[in-house]
Amino acid sequence: MNDKLTTLRTKTPEEGFALAVKLAQKGVEVTQPSESIRKRLRPKYSRNANSLIAASQVIAIHFQTVAAANNYWQSSKYNINIKK
Amino acid sequence: MNDKLTTLRTKTPEEGFALAVKLAQKGVEVTQPSESIRKRLRPKYSRNANSLIAASQVIAIHFQTVAAANNYWQSSKYNINIKK
Amino acid sequence: MNDKLTTLRTKTPEEGFALAVKLAQKGVEVTQPSESIRKRLRPKYSRNANSLIAASQVIAIHFQTVAAANNYWQSSKYNINIKK
Amino acid sequence: MNDKLTTLRTKTPEEGFALAVKLAQKGVEVTQPSESIRKRLRPKYSRNANSLIAASQVIAIHFQTVAAANNYWQSSKYNINIKK
Amino acid sequence: MNDKLTTLRTKTPEEGFALAVKLAQKGVEVTQPSESIRKRLRPKYSRNANSLIAASQVIAIHFQTVAAANNYWQSSKYNINIKK
Amino acid sequence: MNDKLTTLRTKTPEEGFALAVKLAQKGVEVTQPSESIRKRLRPKYSRNANSLIAASQVIAIHFQTVAAANNYWQSSKYNINIKK
Repeated sequence: MNDKLTTLRTKTPEEGFALAVKLAQKGVEVTQPSESIRKRLRPKYSRNANSLIAASQVIAIHFQTVAAANNYWQSSKYNINIKK
Repeated sequence: MNDKLTTLRTKTPEEGFALAVKLAQKGVEVTQPSESIRKRLRPKYSRNANSLIAASQVIAIHFQTVAAANNYWQSSKYNINIKK
Repeated sequence: MNDKLTTLRTKTPEEGFALAVKLAQKGVEVTQPSESIRKRLRPKYSRNANSLIAASQVIAIHFQTVAAANNYWQSSKYNINIKK
Repeated sequence: MNDKLTTLRTKTPEEGFALAVKLAQKGVEVTQPSESIRKRLRPKYSRNANSLIAASQVIAIHFQTVAAANNYWQSSKYNINIKK
Repeated sequence: MNDKLTTLRTKTPEEGFALAVKLAQKGVEVTQPSESIRKRLRPKYSRNANSLIAASQVIAIHFQTVAAANNYWQSSKYNINIKK
Repeated sequence: MNDKLTTLRTKTPEEGFALAVKLAQKGVEVTQPSESIRKRLRPKYSRNANSLIAASQVIAIHFQTVAAANNYWQSSKYNINIKK
């Protein structure tokens, strides 16, 4: 997977979740482009429960988007039966 | 239930809620993969009301996704009546 | 109402709001299953304005889900008129 | 307007916003039912910018729900033109 | 633009964003009606990065609502092609 | 790209994400119009993990809006097959 975001489609919910994680990280990267600064922050926030919950929340928001983009990985949702 | 996320479909809202909980935990796990560190954090945040509310919020966001993926566990929602 | 979540349908918005409250509590309960610990936390957070606002927010997110599951308690929303 | 929530429909966006405010307060009230305690908290949080922003956020989430329940106060949105 | 909210429709995304800002402020105003108190709070929170990010988040939530109310300022989204 | 927001349409998810970032910044700018004050805040919050996560969250919310406005960069989502 390269860094450019070319599609929101994934084959499985598992891959969709991974994409949501990537999107959450991308949001951090645009705000703090320096990889070395981000790496220095990691030991602290990854050991702080509230930071972990907050990170999980950003992933959850992106997962909503990715799941919608993939019709929730099912084709049946938007099927409309019209009875005549 | 194995660790790979293969579907967002569940039989009942109860199981859907359990899946939302799992998704919220998964978001924490990808940020802090060490199970031993996560276990060390647990006694503290699970006794902090604000952390518990924040955790509940992440579950709520994932439950929106899971509920939508399951047509809110009803078939009638997307029925469209066309009168001629 | 038993503890198992069997449906998101409710008769009125009032009951839907009560269900949203229940869902928010359920999210706390799965994270902290001990009722005695939860009860010990209550006096403090229920007297803290920011905690109350945060709790209200989780309810708001679940109410979105419950309201959508109930077609916002109206049948007219998804009616589609097709003129020929 | 009595305390029971009987409908999410309002005549105008202005009234819809007022309903969203009421829903946000309702979420606080279920968590802290004592009116005297809530009144004691008010002077402090209503003078705290972060609390005010947090309260505004809960209103925003409920306003999404109310606006959707009212088709965003327009009838045109769900019109579907089918060309044959 | 007067203070009453009469419509969520705007001509452009730019105006829609301005409406979202207005809605976020309206949420603060209903919680703290005193203009003089709000003005006293402003110098502090407008120089606090976390407060600014939180304010931006409330605007983002309202912008979702306004954008949906305006079909995302495009007419093509809800077109449905039915092939016979 | 000029400062006025004229459309939510973008050619790719990558450009859509950039637009979401711009919208998040725009929300900060309307609350703190002074560029010099904003620049003074930057070194501090861009080195604070929780601020970075919060900024990433605002971007995530706007990305939901932009993605919806672009049909998730796919045309197939709103196709409805009607079998007769």
